[in-house]
Amino acid sequence: MKIGGNIIDGSAALERFLLQFAQIESPKILVHGGGNMATQLAQKLGIETKMVDGRRITDLETLKIAVMVYAGWINKSLVASLQKLGCNAIGMSGADGDTVPAKRRAKKPIDFGYVGDVDPSHINSTLLTSILGRGITPIFCAVTHDGNGTLFNTNADTMASSIAIAMSVNYRTNLIYCFEKDGVLEDINDSSSVIPLISQKSYLKLRERGVVQEGMIPKIENAFFALQNNVSKVSIRSSANLLVERGTTLVK
Amino acid sequence: MKIGGNIIDGSAALERFLLQFAQIESPKILVHGGGNMATQLAQKLGIETKMVDGRRITDLETLKIAVMVYAGWINKSLVASLQKLGCNAIGMSGADGDTVPAKRRAKKPIDFGYVGDVDPSHINSTLLTSILGRGITPIFCAVTHDGNGTLFNTNADTMASSIAIAMSVNYRTNLIYCFEKDGVLEDINDSSSVIPLISQKSYLKLRERGVVQEGMIPKIENAFFALQNNVSKVSIRSSANLLVERGTTLVK
Repeated sequence: MKIGGNIIDGSAALERFLLQFAQIESPKILVHGGGNMATQLAQKLGIETKMVDGRRITDLETLKIAVMVYAGWINKSLVASLQKLGCNAIGMSGADGDTVPAKRRAKKPIDFGYVGDVDPSHINSTLLTSILGRGITPIFCAVTHDGNGTLFNTNADTMASSIAIAMSVNYRTNLIYCFEKDGVLEDINDSSSVIPLISQKSYLKLRERGVVQEGMIPKIENAFFALQNNVSKVSIRSSANLLVERGTTLVK
Repeated sequence: MKIGGNIIDGSAALERFLLQFAQIESPKILVHGGGNMATQLAQKLGIETKMVDGRRITDLETLKIAVMVYAGWINKSLVASLQKLGCNAIGMSGADGDTVPAKRRAKKPIDFGYVGDVDPSHINSTLLTSILGRGITPIFCAVTHDGNGTLFNTNADTMASSIAIAMSVNYRTNLIYCFEKDGVLEDINDSSSVIPLISQKSYLKLRERGVVQEGMIPKIENAFFALQNNVSKVSIRSSANLLVERGTTLVK
């Protein structure tokens, strides 16, 4: 399961999500995004967001902030909150137990800085399986490492789909992207216009028509990649209704 | 093993320490202190250190900084560096896997804020034993939790001795406090004046004479407490000579 920054930032939404997440009885893994805290901290410290061709660059100062906020405060706060709810959580980055090694993104055409991409086949699913087998729930921030001493900022959506793919060797996996809306909407201004099913074919049309755009595009493409790689089910739904089968289901 | 902030801050000293630490073949656990980064970050953010009767208070803002720096950047940097050295490390706070629960320090006579004290008998040594059994090395920052959603700043020396005591149920444990000096010095200005052996009796004399003072007092008292609670050996020595039996050994 993956939750994005908007959920992290809304304390009521987060509490509601965690209450439901803690109740899920099957083995589960959470990947969390960042939220506003990193941006706010960078602003307070006078660290400017570096952009090249409209893309955000992670320099060393930005990486430090990301690791402090994501692996530090947010990750440990989530773990402490879940412990309170009776869910024995363990906070992790991809460096911990070498669970999620990554490769620095190619420097051409754009050098993104400390950004790593994950190959699902390199994920240490054995350790994760052993942790899950003890009834413990891994909570991942989207920080990885190269095995050579360098930490990376990583896309949380891709991290979630990669972990789901890796875990599908040992489990029937269900990848859920949770966000603040009820699913992928046909009309962005109508919250009831959830598209219940998106196939690869219908996705291309939705994209052509501009219904699916921006941040939703990589999310859906990650979803299809997961379905093509042994993940049984992928859905995009509201963090507020985790236990109800609603939202958008992706099908091959 | 515990390393203090001065080692964390000195990149050459840290590298030297980690190289040796990675070579230790027996199961090992590292507890690390904080270093200057938290103080520097607080200064940059204009957060004042609150003091009552000369004691530092951890308010919520200070706690956030501690968790970001200790559990975030420092912990994950140490893990990534150890991975590079072939040591499969896993970074943890006491909230992770509920390994080190703590109790908020009594608010009288001084309310220290978000500061937790550890009871060794509550430490989850079963999980730590299982992690060690997989050849994985836990790296602890001195952050704990109350099991009710609250994180605490915790004394790293006490955290180290508490973990050593808890692990002595399953292991013959050896607690090592590493710092920048060669051991407890008879004369603070003479680095060769290491006191090789301190007993509880000789400690009282050293304290009376003012040889042992300030930060060294709780360290030595933690050391004796560990020896009284099944820890086989406690020593205070240089982080630069980890693999050599030198420094100050504490005896009952």
